[in-house]
Amino acid sequence: MICVETTLRVRYADTDKMAFVYYGKYLEYFEVGRTELIRSLGMSYKDIEESGVMLPVSECNIRYHRPARYDDLLTIRTTVPEMPGVKLITEYEIFNQHQEKLVSGKVVLPFVDTQSLKITRIPDNIRVLFERRWIVK
Amino acid sequence: MICVETTLRVRYADTDKMAFVYYGKYLEYFEVGRTELIRSLGMSYKDIEESGVMLPVSECNIRYHRPARYDDLLTIRTTVPEMPGVKLITEYEIFNQHQEKLVSGKVVLPFVDTQSLKITRIPDNIRVLFERRWIVK
Amino acid sequence: MICVETTLRVRYADTDKMAFVYYGKYLEYFEVGRTELIRSLGMSYKDIEESGVMLPVSECNIRYHRPARYDDLLTIRTTVPEMPGVKLITEYEIFNQHQEKLVSGKVVLPFVDTQSLKITRIPDNIRVLFERRWIVK
Amino acid sequence: MICVETTLRVRYADTDKMAFVYYGKYLEYFEVGRTELIRSLGMSYKDIEESGVMLPVSECNIRYHRPARYDDLLTIRTTVPEMPGVKLITEYEIFNQHQEKLVSGKVVLPFVDTQSLKITRIPDNIRVLFERRWIVK
Repeated sequence: MICVETTLRVRYADTDKMAFVYYGKYLEYFEVGRTELIRSLGMSYKDIEESGVMLPVSECNIRYHRPARYDDLLTIRTTVPEMPGVKLITEYEIFNQHQEKLVSGKVVLPFVDTQSLKITRIPDNIRVLFERRWIVK
Repeated sequence: MICVETTLRVRYADTDKMAFVYYGKYLEYFEVGRTELIRSLGMSYKDIEESGVMLPVSECNIRYHRPARYDDLLTIRTTVPEMPGVKLITEYEIFNQHQEKLVSGKVVLPFVDTQSLKITRIPDNIRVLFERRWIVK
Repeated sequence: MICVETTLRVRYADTDKMAFVYYGKYLEYFEVGRTELIRSLGMSYKDIEESGVMLPVSECNIRYHRPARYDDLLTIRTTVPEMPGVKLITEYEIFNQHQEKLVSGKVVLPFVDTQSLKITRIPDNIRVLFERRWIVK
Repeated sequence: MICVETTLRVRYADTDKMAFVYYGKYLEYFEVGRTELIRSLGMSYKDIEESGVMLPVSECNIRYHRPARYDDLLTIRTTVPEMPGVKLITEYEIFNQHQEKLVSGKVVLPFVDTQSLKITRIPDNIRVLFERRWIVK
């Protein structure tokens, strides 16, 4: 597995009239989490797309435990639980500054060839980056 | 069950650089779907909140079958599959103008007392609205 | 001039913890207004982009008179005050269901060639559509 | 004057099908800029709201020079050009990692009493924070 933590600050724009973060916004926070996990491997997601592979989302599950609020400093813990093959499985936990778990989720992203739009296996140069950082649970 | 269809147009703002609708945006489309389902019962979600009950989201699952694109005219089919008790379960299917199914999902919303922030049963005046429109599957 | 009115419903996602619509969201409402104005001429903005011209925004001014609130049914009045040459000038007024003016604004969009990314004049086939609907003030 | 710089990373969610940051998104970046400027004075905007004053936006002007793109690392330079009285005037310049100026803008925010919703003068405890950091141009 690979696990990376990132922090971000809740913006006013992210809140809704309940004074909580809007439920769809967390999917954007998940995006930040996996982007920084990939960057930590030594390649940006931008590089991946430019190399001819993209990672659209095929599935997303999320459970809301407690609300995030304006100006909270959130920690997003992103985990890749299994070595990617034709898809990248990512799991998330979001905590606030009081170490309360707010949200947990899972996002599945198949590797797709940008030209043919068909599902493909993880390219070797990307797989190597995951292997280099892999930790046996 | 109760089932209502609503249409909406994909905005430029909803798309991302893949030229598809961003994966988090569909949760906003689901919101539109359930808002119009509730309105069709004879009460707006705004009225519900003003009566002292709110419906935060506790859980959301979504599967992405095909991408929605800019200016697509989407149909959101929202279904309430079982009579609400302490929570409102809602299911969604989104189709484009070619009747292709793009997305399917489920959102669970507990009834929460706005004052105490505790989970509560559906108020009687709201339950009656569901019962009046209820269709046995 | 050309003037078109469109309506839209304020979503929960559009509000912030002040219980008002977030100030950046109105630019999305302006987008809806000009998209529907263009469609009313007999061509969609999507068609325009596919014909090789795009309209990025170069300038935007907005004044906020009163807040829009959740579930408000807004009317967006979009005006093209002068015949487009190298740019499309658009003006907006947004009203709520009580005919209160909430926001007024202006957005300037140069015509840009999608290939060269250089500013270009309005293509003749699009200019004709504006001329056909033009009303002398 | 007071001038503070903040950085932020462009998210995938911020881009549109032109592969540029959506024009309304910059208002959110401006929010991040002024939030961090206020925090640097020794008080968060959250504290200000909790003290009974809020700062809704009354006016916003923005000019788009060049597009921001996915994964760009932006610098937001936020300036308060004059000592706030009944309103806070804020100016913005956004640069990318190549020191290219992308956007410039201005946002005006009156001080409003949260209870009465009437315009009010900047409270003394907040004015002091601005004075302490004030630099004569």
